[in-house]
Amino acid sequence: MIDFESFKREFNIIAGPCAIENKKQIETIAAAVKDSGATVLRGGAFKLRSDANSFMGLGPDGAKLLVNAGKKVGLPVLTEVTKISDLQFLSDVDILQIGTRNMQNYPLITETAKTGKIILLKRGFGCTIKEYLQSVEYIKKEGNDKIILCERGIRTFETALRNTFDVSAVAILKDKTNFPVFADPSHASGDRKYVKRLSLSAVAIGCDGLEIEVHNAPEKALSDREQALNLDEFKELVSQVKELRKTVQNFYE
Amino acid sequence: MIDFESFKREFNIIAGPCAIENKKQIETIAAAVKDSGATVLRGGAFKLRSDANSFMGLGPDGAKLLVNAGKKVGLPVLTEVTKISDLQFLSDVDILQIGTRNMQNYPLITETAKTGKIILLKRGFGCTIKEYLQSVEYIKKEGNDKIILCERGIRTFETALRNTFDVSAVAILKDKTNFPVFADPSHASGDRKYVKRLSLSAVAIGCDGLEIEVHNAPEKALSDREQALNLDEFKELVSQVKELRKTVQNFYE
Amino acid sequence: MIDFESFKREFNIIAGPCAIENKKQIETIAAAVKDSGATVLRGGAFKLRSDANSFMGLGPDGAKLLVNAGKKVGLPVLTEVTKISDLQFLSDVDILQIGTRNMQNYPLITETAKTGKIILLKRGFGCTIKEYLQSVEYIKKEGNDKIILCERGIRTFETALRNTFDVSAVAILKDKTNFPVFADPSHASGDRKYVKRLSLSAVAIGCDGLEIEVHNAPEKALSDREQALNLDEFKELVSQVKELRKTVQNFYE
Amino acid sequence: MIDFESFKREFNIIAGPCAIENKKQIETIAAAVKDSGATVLRGGAFKLRSDANSFMGLGPDGAKLLVNAGKKVGLPVLTEVTKISDLQFLSDVDILQIGTRNMQNYPLITETAKTGKIILLKRGFGCTIKEYLQSVEYIKKEGNDKIILCERGIRTFETALRNTFDVSAVAILKDKTNFPVFADPSHASGDRKYVKRLSLSAVAIGCDGLEIEVHNAPEKALSDREQALNLDEFKELVSQVKELRKTVQNFYE
Repeated sequence: MIDFESFKREFNIIAGPCAIENKKQIETIAAAVKDSGATVLRGGAFKLRSDANSFMGLGPDGAKLLVNAGKKVGLPVLTEVTKISDLQFLSDVDILQIGTRNMQNYPLITETAKTGKIILLKRGFGCTIKEYLQSVEYIKKEGNDKIILCERGIRTFETALRNTFDVSAVAILKDKTNFPVFADPSHASGDRKYVKRLSLSAVAIGCDGLEIEVHNAPEKALSDREQALNLDEFKELVSQVKELRKTVQNFYE
Repeated sequence: MIDFESFKREFNIIAGPCAIENKKQIETIAAAVKDSGATVLRGGAFKLRSDANSFMGLGPDGAKLLVNAGKKVGLPVLTEVTKISDLQFLSDVDILQIGTRNMQNYPLITETAKTGKIILLKRGFGCTIKEYLQSVEYIKKEGNDKIILCERGIRTFETALRNTFDVSAVAILKDKTNFPVFADPSHASGDRKYVKRLSLSAVAIGCDGLEIEVHNAPEKALSDREQALNLDEFKELVSQVKELRKTVQNFYE
Repeated sequence: MIDFESFKREFNIIAGPCAIENKKQIETIAAAVKDSGATVLRGGAFKLRSDANSFMGLGPDGAKLLVNAGKKVGLPVLTEVTKISDLQFLSDVDILQIGTRNMQNYPLITETAKTGKIILLKRGFGCTIKEYLQSVEYIKKEGNDKIILCERGIRTFETALRNTFDVSAVAILKDKTNFPVFADPSHASGDRKYVKRLSLSAVAIGCDGLEIEVHNAPEKALSDREQALNLDEFKELVSQVKELRKTVQNFYE
Repeated sequence: MIDFESFKREFNIIAGPCAIENKKQIETIAAAVKDSGATVLRGGAFKLRSDANSFMGLGPDGAKLLVNAGKKVGLPVLTEVTKISDLQFLSDVDILQIGTRNMQNYPLITETAKTGKIILLKRGFGCTIKEYLQSVEYIKKEGNDKIILCERGIRTFETALRNTFDVSAVAILKDKTNFPVFADPSHASGDRKYVKRLSLSAVAIGCDGLEIEVHNAPEKALSDREQALNLDEFKELVSQVKELRKTVQNFYE
């Protein structure tokens, strides 16, 4: 049984592919990220895609593959909920993620909160921190305060990367709430080349964890192939993150 | 039976309160806006509110009040769908609205599209025009092309009004699609003082219709009280819009 | 002698090329735009260009060509000041423009204000309306209140056009000040295809004038060739603008 | 004589007050920041203020006070140039700063470049990284490549802090250029409470230095009093920055 309080005490790294593609893929990645130091396995079973003709995920079968892969390596698992009816297939999942496009989908948030599971609520890319905290209230209203926050980049005029990583948001959320605050540099940048640097900036500003897209063969990934780290890159990242975290920890006590 | 093609041929004005509050309120407004020249009655039964403790609408009962008020005065009706389960209560509604926060809620869009009804899909306040048109594909994928587009303001650094009304979006959408393109100056401004001016700018740039919040007693409205026009203001607006539309029509043939 | 008060009473159209290129070019354009109904001739002599290797304008010679072309056809002229030392060459120019990049260049604004000439101060593309009005104070501080304001598009996440034309700003500036408020749809869109529609939206919202880039051969222009109207397009625009203005005028009295 | 190459090799901290107020103030701060580990003394003599009635700096006298204070403690000095005529008073200054509002003031950049001095060019708060690098070309065009870049926050819809600190910009600029890349967390946040966290995030992402506002009595400062660190806060900051820098350095070799 996963212990929510540990997300406040310890630094956690959620890692795995954007989309679960098949048994072998998710098990390979699960073993590798566990070995490198990840503490939660992620993988998308139900996908929201801007392009109506993209790969939409394996659905319930994907969720099963994820849960089994997690068990095999001894990692709790996280997957995204995209609609209320997904929930019936996710009873064995440890952490339910509400994605950036659903940060103001209050009916979905409410039903997900009712499961009593840990919820990782991503910040909407077009939403203010104030609105983000208002969405948190919908979870608390259902008596669920096992909430992880996660900054993942916002929309601005700058087009050099896919989004602008609002690193200050991590500091502000730490200041205004008691929830663990994570960062997702993969979606913030949309470019694996910058995932390491953004991760380090987030650790230094005091985040409680990271969510990182990792794939065993990023160039063949069925979605988001530009942003996933390969297994070696992820391993190096974890080791640097841990070293940095050790240095930083003293600054925030 | 409402004829979708008329939304392409004629200028339509959708008017009514943010939220349906009671029988008398919606019937009073229905009669008044019909009298002033509105062609569709709007009213919110299921409400998405940032603040978890706000009034959330009357739900199924609100939908019934709206349908009846529309019948009584002979106006088709529009209401917003906020979750898939709302749809079962909306079989008598003529136009289903997908709100700005749900522009990328593809499961909701898909199920709503399957009803075969006319869908007014609002632009997401943090979404590009490109993403807007990608969401339209989800409706077309279900064989439904009875789609009305609606610009309602985007998020920018300017804070003088609640949103920045992207008037160019109307021109671009007219250029890139054959769907009727509406504007919602009430949500764009969040301030009744600017609703008239924004409406006129939208008409001049060639929009096919407007969606306007109107209330018989705006100062007592249960939601969005700053932006609703009162009955007299709406009447004046319609008359100016019609006169302007006549002038403009020749410019775009 | 140009009468500033007429800019409050009458609708003015400032037209001409981005850059003055040679005597023939500016005189051809001057005659044509005067004939079509322009009331001020514009042309750039000193140019600020993002690309350090672009054409920077003809400088003092360009200013002379502009002044002479204006005299020949009987139009007052406007040109942009880019640095304090430009001012010595601009004593025969009627209206001095401070460009969008200089909206917070207070030393330049102050020295330009001291000439006592009419100043058209463009809104900074990254600046709020509040900051815009703060910059106006620098002009008034020098005892000069012959000020024309001009919305020309702001920076947002939307990339469909070069900037997002903030049409509401026209309404807000009309509401908060007594200065004439213009719009510049050429720079707002960066695309001639949308100049007409944006112009009409600005007229409908109640602007007091327009600034439009016009070129006799836009495809050969030395700068901003995508956005300049050709002479025929400009002629049509003026006629529609005048017709629209007549309709709208009654709405704002 | 200050050695530009050292800005590439070593980590530098530029510190001092927003505005030079008097001899005692700047000398007190100079001694303290030198003692804490600052390597450059900053102070504003010529100020650009949005509010036309604010304190505008001591001008040439301020520059002298700064230069003398720097000499006394053995620190090179930096001050901002706001107009071309300032340059005549700044021949003893080591580093000339072009502020955010002047990032596209090409005439000022050009004349400042001609001095041959080191130039710290701040990013415009409304400007893209692409435009930033275009402005750098104006300096290089004058044969000056002693250029320091500095991210200081951009304009977005988020209003929790004064600007949104674009930490990714540091990474991108490091990637695309060979110039030292600094960060200014004081202006990015506008709030001393967040200066430390933002500084650490910038160091972790690999910046080459920081510019920090420091005041001996922030609550009495003549400008920007909300964002200046006091002398003790600055001392603690430097010690943490140095420790973090040591950890991070290995990651970027």
